[in-house]
Amino acid sequence: MELVEICRQAKEASYLLGQLDTGTKNRALLAAADALENNSNQIIAENNKDMETGETKGMPPALLDRLKLDEGRIRQMAEGLRQIARLDDPIGEILSMKKRPNGLMVGQKRVPLGVVGMIYEARPNVTVDAFGLCFKTGNAVVLKGGSDALHSNIAITSVLKGVLADCEIPQEAVSLIEDTRRETAASFMKMNEYLDVLIPRGGAGLIRAVVSQATVPVIETGTGNCHIFVDETADQNMACEIILNAKTQRIGVCNACESLLIHQNIADSFFPVLAKALQEKNVEMRVDSQIMQILNRDDSVHTALINPAKEQDWGTEYLDYVISVKTVSSVDEAIRHINRYNTGHSEAILTDNYANAQRFLNEVDAACVYVNASTRFSDGFEFGFGAEIGISTQKLHARGPMGLNALTSTKYIIYGNGQVRP
Amino acid sequence: MELVEICRQAKEASYLLGQLDTGTKNRALLAAADALENNSNQIIAENNKDMETGETKGMPPALLDRLKLDEGRIRQMAEGLRQIARLDDPIGEILSMKKRPNGLMVGQKRVPLGVVGMIYEARPNVTVDAFGLCFKTGNAVVLKGGSDALHSNIAITSVLKGVLADCEIPQEAVSLIEDTRRETAASFMKMNEYLDVLIPRGGAGLIRAVVSQATVPVIETGTGNCHIFVDETADQNMACEIILNAKTQRIGVCNACESLLIHQNIADSFFPVLAKALQEKNVEMRVDSQIMQILNRDDSVHTALINPAKEQDWGTEYLDYVISVKTVSSVDEAIRHINRYNTGHSEAILTDNYANAQRFLNEVDAACVYVNASTRFSDGFEFGFGAEIGISTQKLHARGPMGLNALTSTKYIIYGNGQVRP
Repeated sequence: MELVEICRQAKEASYLLGQLDTGTKNRALLAAADALENNSNQIIAENNKDMETGETKGMPPALLDRLKLDEGRIRQMAEGLRQIARLDDPIGEILSMKKRPNGLMVGQKRVPLGVVGMIYEARPNVTVDAFGLCFKTGNAVVLKGGSDALHSNIAITSVLKGVLADCEIPQEAVSLIEDTRRETAASFMKMNEYLDVLIPRGGAGLIRAVVSQATVPVIETGTGNCHIFVDETADQNMACEIILNAKTQRIGVCNACESLLIHQNIADSFFPVLAKALQEKNVEMRVDSQIMQILNRDDSVHTALINPAKEQDWGTEYLDYVISVKTVSSVDEAIRHINRYNTGHSEAILTDNYANAQRFLNEVDAACVYVNASTRFSDGFEFGFGAEIGISTQKLHARGPMGLNALTSTKYIIYGNGQVRP
Repeated sequence: MELVEICRQAKEASYLLGQLDTGTKNRALLAAADALENNSNQIIAENNKDMETGETKGMPPALLDRLKLDEGRIRQMAEGLRQIARLDDPIGEILSMKKRPNGLMVGQKRVPLGVVGMIYEARPNVTVDAFGLCFKTGNAVVLKGGSDALHSNIAITSVLKGVLADCEIPQEAVSLIEDTRRETAASFMKMNEYLDVLIPRGGAGLIRAVVSQATVPVIETGTGNCHIFVDETADQNMACEIILNAKTQRIGVCNACESLLIHQNIADSFFPVLAKALQEKNVEMRVDSQIMQILNRDDSVHTALINPAKEQDWGTEYLDYVISVKTVSSVDEAIRHINRYNTGHSEAILTDNYANAQRFLNEVDAACVYVNASTRFSDGFEFGFGAEIGISTQKLHARGPMGLNALTSTKYIIYGNGQVRP
């Protein structure tokens, strides 16, 4: 089907989807979970085609791993839909209702966005996830997944569409753009007449491309050059544990710590201890000259994994066993450095000083700002939303981990009895 | 100054502006109000230059009227700033704070957007308005006003900057782009590094241009092809009053009614009465064939101001003494027609039927949906916000009349005591 026709039909369907009652939506989600499991052989067979092409093309192992589906992963995807079915339905909630002096009742009601466009890489689990979250919030979703996962995505969406048909719900609740040409993606990003929002999910390059080409409103997700600032009053044992967790608990994620700022008054005592712990985890440290001087004085630390930092290190999201380390003279310098180099994701101060903690929380410009905790908690599940469509690093509409509410808008509803404006 | 330098300095200033306390902001707003009044002669002298050029260029009278400043209008602008000073400061409010099972306290706090870019036409009052609203919400604002108002805007911003300097507040809280070249406007819309949002204010052409060119997130404001549906159970006297109000109380505004849907079962009795009332106000009616047939049977209505509607009439925002009129067979047909042709602004049903009222409120896709009231109430002041930066017709971030809250974002603040992610 032509792109414009796909989007037009999604818009048409969205009017009906927004009116579905919660029970109907939940039954469809549970049926979709069962259907994915019951059709896992067929989905895996199609996924194998993508895997073979990927291997032939020499796709890197990490990407092949994200592409791969097996029984266990299909069960996880199904479980995700069951979880979404259990969440409260945000649609229809009245957020406020106030009476004006002229008697008008002005209320604000939560409604679906309408049609959500998703652009993502070769990760078939996002196909199921995006459908589940958008469907629960009464939105139609139009998917543009990575072409390397096309067979998998066709198989998955065909199972989902079958379930929708069985439930007598418009199948256009989920649509897949099968045309993999670049110009089709470009047109998709300009479908303002039919799309209400575009959500890109993937690496920095994908997100930049969408932000620069799209005329449809975009929610920017993702990149995280996250800092931890170890203030001079920090509990140093706690600091070691938090830094190890934020850097190494999972390295390829946007809320992992990429850069460390250490108050110069404790660098001497703290850095050698930390460096040993990071070395045990095979983390390369790219350090400023002050840290280098400390190391020159202290021969208890191997210098194998320690290199001088270059200017570009302060702005790099490594997503790897690498961390940049810089000394600072004050909380002011830490805040200025972070506001210059961060990507607006997650930032932490480790301190025992009340005033510094408050200044950091107030003045650091990021979606999530922490005192004495690991940046790895920036996550919809950890924040208690029960689901996550991504982590927004922009300030408009949604900022930080996005749960179901981020996929909703509001409308004003006004009850009158003949009021006219004087 | 170069555009990029203006934006960079605005970003730099925004960090300080976000930390100003409410008292400081209010004192500056009140001082700015006084300064505008005290410098009115100079502002009017500069405005006269713009007016003379405008007259020479043959600017239409309506635009010249919007451009013109006099003592009274400057007093109004100053009064606007005093009103903004009296409003509650939304910045710093904690919207929620919850304890997670691991002891983390996760809160959400209202913060400024950062740097707001405004693109507007030759209306110097928007210069003062935008400064006041952005400043109260801790944002820096960068203004790109219509080139026909350049002298006026330079005079106004210079007064505002003087006040900021006196109050020891960064003057970059307000900046004016004086370079009127088209390519400068185009670059401005792509300053993603420094701008957090762009708000275009003006006609449909200006807004379309910004939406299609900008890479900075945009809040779309403005165009309103607003409908009123007169259901068969409507109180017909009330309906007449509401329609006259919505169409003629002020014609050039986005919340004025442009199109009328009348249930076919009452068109016979209702339309002739309404038509006479609209004719008295000199409103041209563009009507469908069913209405034409009614008129052919009823010779009590002059046909002078009545013409057959063309397809394009259903999608036209006239902003004039013109209204399109169509009969429909049901609330379903009314909802379908509105969802096809409206611009997502304000829509009303006039009815005495509970189920139809609820269906209209639920199913019409617009920022503001009314039962038994005039669409002219879609306005930040009428909704009780005390101020308005525009009316959003998009679904992301803010929808409907936007008060101070629309100029804010949120950040998550997380208090821990050593939590790491397992």
